[in-house]
Amino acid sequence: MSSHTVYLRPRYAETDQMGVIYHANYLIWMEMGRTEWCKARGFNYKDMEKEGVLLAVVEANCRYLFPARYDDHIAVVTTMPEASRRMVRFEYEIRNADTEKVLSTGFTRHIFCNSSMQPASLPERYHALFEIAPRG
Amino acid sequence: MSSHTVYLRPRYAETDQMGVIYHANYLIWMEMGRTEWCKARGFNYKDMEKEGVLLAVVEANCRYLFPARYDDHIAVVTTMPEASRRMVRFEYEIRNADTEKVLSTGFTRHIFCNSSMQPASLPERYHALFEIAPRG
Amino acid sequence: MSSHTVYLRPRYAETDQMGVIYHANYLIWMEMGRTEWCKARGFNYKDMEKEGVLLAVVEANCRYLFPARYDDHIAVVTTMPEASRRMVRFEYEIRNADTEKVLSTGFTRHIFCNSSMQPASLPERYHALFEIAPRG
Amino acid sequence: MSSHTVYLRPRYAETDQMGVIYHANYLIWMEMGRTEWCKARGFNYKDMEKEGVLLAVVEANCRYLFPARYDDHIAVVTTMPEASRRMVRFEYEIRNADTEKVLSTGFTRHIFCNSSMQPASLPERYHALFEIAPRG
Repeated sequence: MSSHTVYLRPRYAETDQMGVIYHANYLIWMEMGRTEWCKARGFNYKDMEKEGVLLAVVEANCRYLFPARYDDHIAVVTTMPEASRRMVRFEYEIRNADTEKVLSTGFTRHIFCNSSMQPASLPERYHALFEIAPRG
Repeated sequence: MSSHTVYLRPRYAETDQMGVIYHANYLIWMEMGRTEWCKARGFNYKDMEKEGVLLAVVEANCRYLFPARYDDHIAVVTTMPEASRRMVRFEYEIRNADTEKVLSTGFTRHIFCNSSMQPASLPERYHALFEIAPRG
Repeated sequence: MSSHTVYLRPRYAETDQMGVIYHANYLIWMEMGRTEWCKARGFNYKDMEKEGVLLAVVEANCRYLFPARYDDHIAVVTTMPEASRRMVRFEYEIRNADTEKVLSTGFTRHIFCNSSMQPASLPERYHALFEIAPRG
Repeated sequence: MSSHTVYLRPRYAETDQMGVIYHANYLIWMEMGRTEWCKARGFNYKDMEKEGVLLAVVEANCRYLFPARYDDHIAVVTTMPEASRRMVRFEYEIRNADTEKVLSTGFTRHIFCNSSMQPASLPERYHALFEIAPRG
């Protein structure tokens, strides 16, 4: 199972008055993880969308263990434990890249849609990229 | 179990290039639901925080059934099915307020913290507000 | 010159670690002001966009006098001092609605575009709404 | 006048239903520009804030020439044309880093504050970093 790591610095805009990163922003970091996971696999999600294949989020989950703070050195590790013609699941580990401490874990589930946002089977040319085995 | 409903209009800023509301924003709407749930129960979360009692998010989950769109009429229904001296769980149903269609469901779990962000037992004066039964 | 006021409660998500509302959010509140200004004038910006008339921002400015805070009672007063077939300018005053203190002032300038994001003259049926005088 | 460039990839979360980056996000990119400008000058804004010196935004301005899009290669060029013991002004040029096209220009003005958010003179140990000449 291929994993990919993207690094980022939390923005001041992402902090809240508790002095930590507001929790909803972790879902955006997961999106960055997916975007870069796609590139590491050899394609751009941007191009896939232009070809009419959309990844619509159907579930998102995040557990918060330790807070991230402004300008920390953050690593988002993305894996894709599950994919079929219909859906795909990504998992994420968000770490402090300096201390290796796991700050948060989460997953997102997606269905493939066409450009009208209707569920659609993933075209065959993308199967290898999502590690979907050819039909027997 | 008391529920509370808050109404909102999705902002243009909250849309994405799929033409729908970006999924992370639902977590922010849930936060609005909690804030207004507290008011409906007779206290302001703002004041509670000033008194050194913080609600730190330890898990957030959202399932997306149908997309919300810019300037839709949205209802966020918040309930609190579970609370103890240590933690509280909120559940949410996000509906299109015109059609009553459920667009998304979710929950958040929180622990009570002191102003140094350390886990702390909820002070007794707040127990009734969170429907925590007095010790026998 | 018609003005319109919209009321809002700053979200926890909008705060930053200074304990105040992060400055970029004021531009989003201005967007809410424009949306409601349109409604008060008798049309929905949402519908205008569906008909292929877009308002693209070409400049935004905001002066910050006093900070807004989480759950304050905020009023955004929107006026439209200038409009032509090509462009429109909105001005905003953001006040604490309880104290009437002016927290911030700003403006945005926009050009009308077609659905391909190309500059385009505002169709005549919208002229009255934007208080554009008929050609002599 | 020292300039500093930071590179970024616009996030899907930052797009809107026009298919471009929502305009308020440019102010957040300017914040990233300032943060990295400070590092290039040899200090962390994060540490300055811990020492009780805050940079509060008193004005922000942005002109939008061409839209940025999801996953573009963006460069934010930051300069600081003006600084005194009381205030500082930053200027920004946001470019498509592949084409060198200038997408947007802007500035922010700030005052130095103490940790209670009250205006305060910049401590002398920071003068050189902000290129403030010693008193004659």
